[in-house]
Amino acid sequence: MKYPNGIKQQNSNNNHINYDNRGMTLEKDLNDTNQYYIDTGKAYIYKKPTPIQITKVDYPSRSHAVIKEAFFKEPSTTDYNGLYKGKYIDFEAKETNSKTSFPLDNIHKHQIKHLENVYNNDGIGFIIVRFNKLNKTYILMAKDLLSFLKENERKSIPLKYFEDYAYLIEEKYIPRLDYLKIIDELLGGA
Amino acid sequence: MKYPNGIKQQNSNNNHINYDNRGMTLEKDLNDTNQYYIDTGKAYIYKKPTPIQITKVDYPSRSHAVIKEAFFKEPSTTDYNGLYKGKYIDFEAKETNSKTSFPLDNIHKHQIKHLENVYNNDGIGFIIVRFNKLNKTYILMAKDLLSFLKENERKSIPLKYFEDYAYLIEEKYIPRLDYLKIIDELLGGA
Repeated sequence: MKYPNGIKQQNSNNNHINYDNRGMTLEKDLNDTNQYYIDTGKAYIYKKPTPIQITKVDYPSRSHAVIKEAFFKEPSTTDYNGLYKGKYIDFEAKETNSKTSFPLDNIHKHQIKHLENVYNNDGIGFIIVRFNKLNKTYILMAKDLLSFLKENERKSIPLKYFEDYAYLIEEKYIPRLDYLKIIDELLGGA
Repeated sequence: MKYPNGIKQQNSNNNHINYDNRGMTLEKDLNDTNQYYIDTGKAYIYKKPTPIQITKVDYPSRSHAVIKEAFFKEPSTTDYNGLYKGKYIDFEAKETNSKTSFPLDNIHKHQIKHLENVYNNDGIGFIIVRFNKLNKTYILMAKDLLSFLKENERKSIPLKYFEDYAYLIEEKYIPRLDYLKIIDELLGGA
Protein backbone atom coordinates (compact mmCIF):
# COMPACT_ATOMS: atom_id res chain seq x y z
CA MET A 1 0.00 0.00 0.00
CA LYS A 2 1.30 3.45 -0.93
CA TYR A 3 0.97 6.39 1.41
CA PRO A 4 0.89 10.04 0.33
CA ASN A 5 3.84 12.40 0.73
CA GLY A 6 6.37 9.60 0.95
CA ILE A 7 5.24 8.56 4.43
CA LYS A 8 6.21 4.97 4.97
CA GLN A 9 3.78 2.55 6.50
CA GLN A 10 4.53 1.97 10.15
CA ASN A 11 3.88 -1.41 11.64
CA SER A 12 0.09 -1.33 11.77
CA ASN A 13 -0.19 -3.82 14.63
CA ASN A 14 0.54 -1.81 17.74
CA ASN A 15 1.04 -4.91 19.83
CA HIS A 16 4.17 -5.75 17.86
CA ILE A 17 7.44 -4.09 18.74
CA ASN A 18 9.57 -3.00 15.82
CA TYR A 19 12.94 -4.72 16.12
CA ASP A 20 14.61 -3.00 13.16
CA ASN A 21 17.27 -1.54 15.48
CA ARG A 22 17.58 -4.73 17.42
CA GLY A 23 21.13 -4.30 18.77
CA MET A 24 20.29 -0.87 20.13
CA THR A 25 16.85 -1.65 21.52
CA LEU A 26 17.74 -2.83 25.00
CA GLU A 27 20.42 -0.17 25.44
CA LYS A 28 18.02 2.55 24.30
CA ASP A 29 15.24 1.25 26.56
CA LEU A 30 17.62 1.23 29.53
CA ASN A 31 18.99 4.70 28.78
CA ASP A 32 15.41 6.05 28.51
CA THR A 33 14.44 4.29 31.73
CA ASN A 34 17.51 5.61 33.57
CA GLN A 35 16.79 9.14 32.33
CA TYR A 36 13.22 8.75 33.64
CA TYR A 37 14.61 7.67 37.03
CA ILE A 38 16.90 10.75 37.08
CA ASP A 39 14.12 13.13 35.99
CA THR A 40 11.75 11.84 38.66
CA GLY A 41 14.46 11.78 41.35
CA LYS A 42 13.96 8.05 41.90
CA ALA A 43 17.53 6.93 41.26
CA TYR A 44 20.79 7.93 39.64
CA ILE A 45 22.00 5.14 37.37
CA TYR A 46 24.16 5.76 34.30
CA LYS A 47 26.19 4.02 31.61
CA LYS A 48 29.95 3.86 32.05
CA PRO A 49 32.34 4.80 29.21
CA THR A 50 33.55 1.99 26.95
CA PRO A 51 37.07 0.95 27.99
CA ILE A 52 39.65 1.82 25.35
CA GLN A 53 43.39 1.14 25.13
CA ILE A 54 45.02 4.19 23.55
CA THR A 55 48.25 3.50 21.64
CA LYS A 56 48.88 6.69 19.59
CA VAL A 57 47.95 10.29 20.31
CA ASP A 58 48.67 13.40 18.19
CA TYR A 59 48.73 16.92 19.58
CA PRO A 60 48.01 19.14 16.57
CA SER A 61 47.57 22.11 18.90
CA ARG A 62 48.29 22.82 22.52
CA SER A 63 44.82 22.18 23.79
CA HIS A 64 43.60 19.46 21.42
CA ALA A 65 44.63 15.85 21.40
CA VAL A 66 43.60 13.49 18.62
CA ILE A 67 43.74 9.79 19.30
CA LYS A 68 45.21 8.17 16.18
CA GLU A 69 45.21 4.54 17.24
CA ALA A 70 43.31 2.74 19.95
CA PHE A 71 41.67 -0.61 20.64
CA PHE A 72 38.59 -1.79 22.45
CA LYS A 73 39.66 -3.36 25.73
CA GLU A 74 37.98 -6.37 27.24
CA PRO A 75 35.65 -4.83 29.80
CA SER A 76 36.71 -5.34 33.41
CA THR A 77 33.47 -3.99 34.82
CA THR A 78 29.84 -3.78 33.73
CA ASP A 79 28.03 -1.26 31.54
CA TYR A 80 25.81 0.39 34.12
CA ASN A 81 26.09 1.51 37.69
CA GLY A 82 24.75 4.09 40.06
CA LEU A 83 22.75 4.43 43.21
CA TYR A 84 19.24 3.90 44.45
CA LYS A 85 18.19 4.95 47.94
CA GLY A 86 21.87 5.24 48.85
CA LYS A 87 22.53 1.65 47.74
CA TYR A 88 25.08 0.72 45.09
CA ILE A 89 23.49 -0.67 41.90
CA ASP A 90 25.51 -2.41 39.18
CA PHE A 91 24.54 -4.42 36.13
CA GLU A 92 25.38 -5.67 32.67
CA ALA A 93 22.70 -5.77 29.95
CA LYS A 94 22.67 -8.24 27.07
CA GLU A 95 20.34 -9.37 24.30
CA THR A 96 20.18 -12.78 22.71
CA ASN A 97 18.34 -14.11 19.68
CA SER A 98 18.31 -17.61 21.10
CA LYS A 99 14.91 -18.90 22.17
CA THR A 100 16.27 -21.51 24.54
CA SER A 101 19.31 -20.20 26.40
CA PHE A 102 21.62 -17.27 27.09
CA PRO A 103 25.16 -17.93 25.75
CA LEU A 104 27.72 -17.18 28.45
CA ASP A 105 30.37 -15.95 26.02
CA ASN A 106 28.30 -12.74 26.06
CA ILE A 107 29.76 -11.96 29.47
CA HIS A 108 33.50 -11.69 30.10
CA LYS A 109 35.27 -13.39 32.97
CA HIS A 110 36.27 -10.03 34.47
CA GLN A 111 32.66 -8.90 34.44
CA ILE A 112 31.65 -12.00 36.42
CA LYS A 113 34.45 -11.24 38.89
CA HIS A 114 33.23 -7.66 39.08
CA LEU A 115 29.66 -8.77 39.88
CA GLU A 116 31.06 -11.13 42.50
CA ASN A 117 32.94 -8.21 44.11
CA VAL A 118 29.74 -6.16 44.08
CA TYR A 119 27.81 -9.00 45.69
CA ASN A 120 30.50 -9.63 48.32
CA ASN A 121 30.50 -5.94 49.28
CA ASP A 122 26.71 -5.83 49.78
CA GLY A 123 25.97 -4.05 46.53
CA ILE A 124 22.96 -4.81 44.32
CA GLY A 125 24.41 -6.53 41.24
CA PHE A 126 22.56 -8.29 38.44
CA ILE A 127 22.36 -8.93 34.72
CA ILE A 128 19.47 -7.89 32.50
CA VAL A 129 18.95 -10.33 29.64
CA ARG A 130 16.50 -9.78 26.83
CA PHE A 131 15.39 -12.77 24.79
CA ASN A 132 14.58 -10.83 21.61
CA LYS A 133 12.57 -13.56 19.88
CA LEU A 134 10.51 -14.28 22.99
CA ASN A 135 10.01 -10.60 23.76
CA LYS A 136 10.97 -11.26 27.38
CA THR A 137 13.44 -9.32 29.52
CA TYR A 138 14.71 -10.79 32.79
CA ILE A 139 16.70 -9.63 35.81
CA LEU A 140 18.99 -12.34 37.15
CA MET A 141 20.54 -11.33 40.47
CA ALA A 142 24.32 -11.75 40.90
CA LYS A 143 23.74 -14.33 43.64
CA ASP A 144 21.76 -16.58 41.28
CA LEU A 145 24.14 -15.99 38.36
CA LEU A 146 27.13 -16.91 40.54
CA SER A 147 25.46 -19.99 41.94
CA PHE A 148 24.59 -21.20 38.42
CA LEU A 149 28.23 -20.72 37.34
CA LYS A 150 29.49 -22.54 40.41
CA GLU A 151 27.28 -25.56 39.90
CA ASN A 152 27.37 -25.84 36.10
CA GLU A 153 30.01 -26.34 33.43
CA ARG A 154 27.60 -25.25 30.67
CA LYS A 155 28.38 -22.58 28.12
CA SER A 156 24.92 -21.09 28.36
CA ILE A 157 22.18 -20.51 30.91
CA PRO A 158 18.96 -22.31 29.87
CA LEU A 159 15.78 -20.28 29.59
CA LYS A 160 14.35 -22.57 32.27
CA TYR A 161 16.87 -21.21 34.77
CA PHE A 162 15.63 -17.68 34.05
CA GLU A 163 12.03 -18.82 34.44
CA ASP A 164 12.88 -20.40 37.80
CA TYR A 165 15.36 -17.91 39.32
CA ALA A 166 15.13 -14.60 37.42
CA TYR A 167 12.42 -11.93 37.45
CA LEU A 168 10.50 -10.84 34.36
CA ILE A 169 10.60 -7.07 33.79
CA GLU A 170 7.28 -5.67 32.70
CA GLU A 171 7.60 -3.57 29.51
CA LYS A 172 5.63 -0.34 29.68
CA TYR A 173 5.44 2.92 27.84
CA ILE A 174 7.01 5.01 30.64
CA PRO A 175 9.35 3.94 32.03
CA ARG A 176 10.12 1.42 29.32
CA LEU A 177 11.75 -1.19 31.59
CA ASP A 178 10.93 -0.53 35.22
CA TYR A 179 13.61 -2.81 36.66
CA LEU A 180 13.78 -0.94 39.97
CA LYS A 181 10.25 -2.16 40.71
CA ILE A 182 11.73 -5.65 41.03
CA ILE A 183 14.63 -4.36 43.14
CA ASP A 184 12.04 -2.70 45.41
CA GLU A 185 10.24 -5.99 45.87
CA LEU A 186 13.51 -7.79 46.62
CA LEU A 187 14.52 -5.11 49.14
CA GLY A 188 11.23 -5.71 50.91
CA GLY A 189 8.75 -3.20 49.53
CA ALA A 190 9.19 0.34 48.18
CA MET B 1 78.58 15.94 42.93
CA LYS B 2 79.28 13.06 40.55
CA TYR B 3 78.36 9.51 41.42
CA PRO B 4 80.05 6.40 40.03
CA ASN B 5 78.48 4.20 37.34
CA GLY B 6 76.11 6.90 36.17
CA ILE B 7 73.96 6.66 39.26
CA LYS B 8 72.14 9.93 39.71
CA GLN B 9 71.94 11.52 43.07
CA GLN B 10 68.62 10.87 44.71
CA ASN B 11 67.17 13.50 46.95
CA SER B 12 69.28 12.94 50.04
CA ASN B 13 66.71 14.39 52.43
CA ASN B 14 64.33 11.53 53.18
CA ASN B 15 61.68 13.83 54.52
CA HIS B 16 61.16 15.16 51.02
CA ILE B 17 58.95 13.28 48.60
CA ASN B 18 60.26 12.97 45.08
CA TYR B 19 57.74 14.64 42.76
CA ASP B 20 59.39 13.65 39.48
CA ASN B 21 56.22 11.81 38.41
CA ARG B 22 54.01 14.46 39.87
CA GLY B 23 50.95 13.97 37.64
CA MET B 24 50.84 10.27 38.42
CA THR B 25 51.49 10.39 42.15
CA LEU B 26 47.99 10.87 43.49
CA GLU B 27 46.47 8.48 40.93
CA LYS B 28 49.04 5.81 41.77
CA ASP B 29 48.54 6.28 45.52
CA LEU B 30 44.78 5.92 45.08
CA ASN B 31 45.06 2.88 42.82
CA ASP B 32 47.37 1.22 45.36
CA THR B 33 45.02 2.12 48.20
CA ASN B 34 41.98 0.80 46.32
CA GLN B 35 43.82 -2.44 45.54
CA TYR B 36 44.61 -2.75 49.25
CA TYR B 37 40.91 -2.27 50.06
CA ILE B 38 40.00 -5.02 47.54
CA ASP B 39 42.70 -7.40 48.78
CA THR B 40 41.62 -6.99 52.40
CA GLY B 41 37.89 -7.18 51.54
CA LYS B 42 37.26 -3.75 53.05
CA ALA B 43 35.72 -2.12 49.98
CA TYR B 44 35.41 -2.37 46.22
CA ILE B 45 36.32 0.97 44.63
CA TYR B 46 37.75 1.26 41.13
CA LYS B 47 38.69 3.75 38.42
CA LYS B 48 36.25 4.26 35.56
CA PRO B 49 37.41 4.21 31.92
CA THR B 50 38.33 7.56 30.34
CA PRO B 51 35.42 8.77 28.19
CA ILE B 52 36.33 8.78 24.49
CA GLN B 53 34.39 9.91 21.43
CA ILE B 54 35.18 7.49 18.61
CA THR B 55 34.91 8.93 15.09
CA LYS B 56 36.66 6.37 12.84
CA VAL B 57 36.98 2.61 13.21
CA ASP B 58 38.69 0.13 10.87
CA TYR B 59 37.88 -3.56 10.80
CA PRO B 60 41.00 -5.20 9.36
CA SER B 61 39.63 -8.61 10.30
CA ARG B 62 36.31 -9.95 11.44
CA SER B 63 37.11 -10.00 15.11
CA HIS B 64 39.45 -7.03 15.47
CA ALA B 65 38.51 -3.42 15.37
CA VAL B 66 41.12 -0.64 15.29
CA ILE B 67 40.05 2.84 16.30
CA LYS B 68 41.66 5.23 13.82
CA GLU B 69 40.35 8.51 15.14
CA ALA B 70 38.92 9.47 18.49
CA PHE B 71 38.86 12.37 20.91
CA PHE B 72 38.90 12.77 24.66
CA LYS B 73 35.41 13.73 25.79
CA GLU B 74 34.72 16.14 28.60
CA PRO B 75 34.03 13.83 31.52
CA SER B 76 30.40 13.68 32.61
CA THR B 77 31.12 11.68 35.73
CA THR B 78 34.03 11.30 38.14
CA ASP B 79 37.13 9.11 37.98
CA TYR B 80 36.39 6.70 40.81
CA ASN B 81 33.40 4.89 42.19
CA GLY B 82 32.47 1.74 43.96
CA LEU B 83 30.97 0.50 47.16
CA TYR B 84 31.79 0.37 50.82
CA LYS B 85 29.59 -1.52 53.29
CA GLY B 86 26.85 -1.57 50.65
CA LYS B 87 27.00 2.23 50.27
CA TYR B 88 27.70 3.98 46.99
CA ILE B 89 31.06 5.83 46.96
CA ASP B 90 32.01 8.32 44.25
CA PHE B 91 34.85 10.80 43.90
CA GLU B 92 37.12 12.83 41.72
CA ALA B 93 40.83 13.21 42.55
CA LYS B 94 42.96 16.22 41.63
CA GLU B 95 46.37 17.63 42.36
CA THR B 96 47.38 21.25 42.42
CA ASN B 97 50.75 23.00 42.66
CA SER B 98 49.17 26.07 44.16
CA LYS B 99 50.00 26.71 47.80
CA THR B 100 46.99 28.89 48.46
CA SER B 101 43.93 27.58 46.60
CA PHE B 102 42.44 24.84 44.43
CA PRO B 103 41.54 26.17 40.93
CA LEU B 104 37.99 25.16 40.04
CA ASP B 105 38.73 24.81 36.32
CA ASN B 106 40.20 21.46 37.37
CA ILE B 107 36.65 20.13 37.76
CA HIS B 108 34.14 20.17 34.91
CA LYS B 109 30.57 21.43 35.27
CA HIS B 110 29.18 17.96 34.50
CA GLN B 111 31.30 16.46 37.25
CA ILE B 112 29.85 18.92 39.77
CA LYS B 113 26.35 17.98 38.57
CA HIS B 114 27.29 14.32 38.91
CA LEU B 115 28.44 14.81 42.53
CA GLU B 116 25.21 16.73 43.19
CA ASN B 117 23.20 13.76 41.85
CA VAL B 118 25.21 11.40 44.05
CA TYR B 119 24.59 13.60 47.09
CA ASN B 120 20.86 13.98 46.34
CA ASN B 121 20.51 10.20 46.07
CA ASP B 122 22.16 9.54 49.44
CA GLY B 123 25.47 8.40 48.00
CA ILE B 124 28.84 9.27 49.52
CA GLY B 125 30.42 11.75 47.11
CA PHE B 126 33.55 13.83 47.57
CA ILE B 127 36.68 15.22 45.96
CA ILE B 128 40.21 14.35 47.00
CA VAL B 129 42.60 17.27 46.49
CA ARG B 130 46.34 17.07 46.96
CA PHE B 131 48.27 20.27 47.46
CA ASN B 132 51.58 18.98 46.09
CA LYS B 133 53.79 21.75 47.45
CA LEU B 134 52.24 21.56 50.92
CA ASN B 135 52.32 17.76 50.96
CA LYS B 136 48.70 17.74 52.15
CA THR B 137 45.80 15.70 50.78
CA TYR B 138 42.24 16.57 51.72
CA ILE B 139 38.77 15.01 51.38
CA LEU B 140 36.10 17.61 50.75
CA MET B 141 32.61 16.12 50.94
CA ALA B 142 30.14 16.88 48.10
CA LYS B 143 27.89 18.72 50.54
CA ASP B 144 30.65 21.18 51.45
CA LEU B 145 31.86 21.49 47.85
CA LEU B 146 28.31 22.28 46.68
CA SER B 147 27.70 24.78 49.44
CA PHE B 148 30.95 26.59 48.61
CA LEU B 149 29.93 26.79 44.94
CA LYS B 150 26.47 28.04 45.85
CA GLU B 151 27.75 30.82 48.05
CA ASN B 152 30.82 31.89 46.08
CA GLU B 153 31.54 33.25 42.62
CA ARG B 154 35.24 32.54 42.98
CA LYS B 155 37.28 30.55 40.48
CA SER B 156 39.15 28.66 43.16
CA ILE B 157 38.59 27.24 46.61
CA PRO B 158 40.99 28.83 49.12
CA LEU B 159 43.19 26.56 51.20
CA LYS B 160 41.48 28.06 54.26
CA TYR B 161 38.17 26.49 53.16
CA PHE B 162 39.86 23.06 53.06
CA GLU B 163 41.38 23.69 56.50
CA ASP B 164 37.94 24.59 57.87
CA TYR B 165 35.63 22.14 56.06
CA ALA B 166 37.71 19.32 54.58
CA TYR B 167 39.47 16.41 56.28
CA LEU B 168 43.19 15.79 56.05
CA ILE B 169 44.06 12.27 54.86
CA GLU B 170 46.94 10.75 56.75
CA GLU B 171 49.67 9.44 54.42
CA LYS B 172 50.96 6.06 55.45
CA TYR B 173 52.99 3.25 54.00
CA ILE B 174 50.07 0.81 53.67
CA PRO B 175 47.51 1.81 52.65
CA ARG B 176 49.05 4.92 51.14
CA LEU B 177 45.97 7.16 51.53
CA ASP B 178 43.47 5.65 53.94
CA TYR B 179 40.54 7.88 52.92
CA LEU B 180 37.92 5.36 54.10
CA LYS B 181 39.10 5.98 57.66
CA ILE B 182 37.62 9.47 57.33
CA ILE B 183 34.43 8.11 55.75
CA ASP B 184 34.16 5.71 58.70
CA GLU B 185 34.38 8.61 61.14
CA LEU B 186 31.75 10.55 59.20
CA LEU B 187 29.44 7.53 59.10
CA GLY B 188 29.70 7.34 62.88
CA GLY B 189 32.49 4.91 63.67
CA ALA B 190 33.70 1.77 61.88
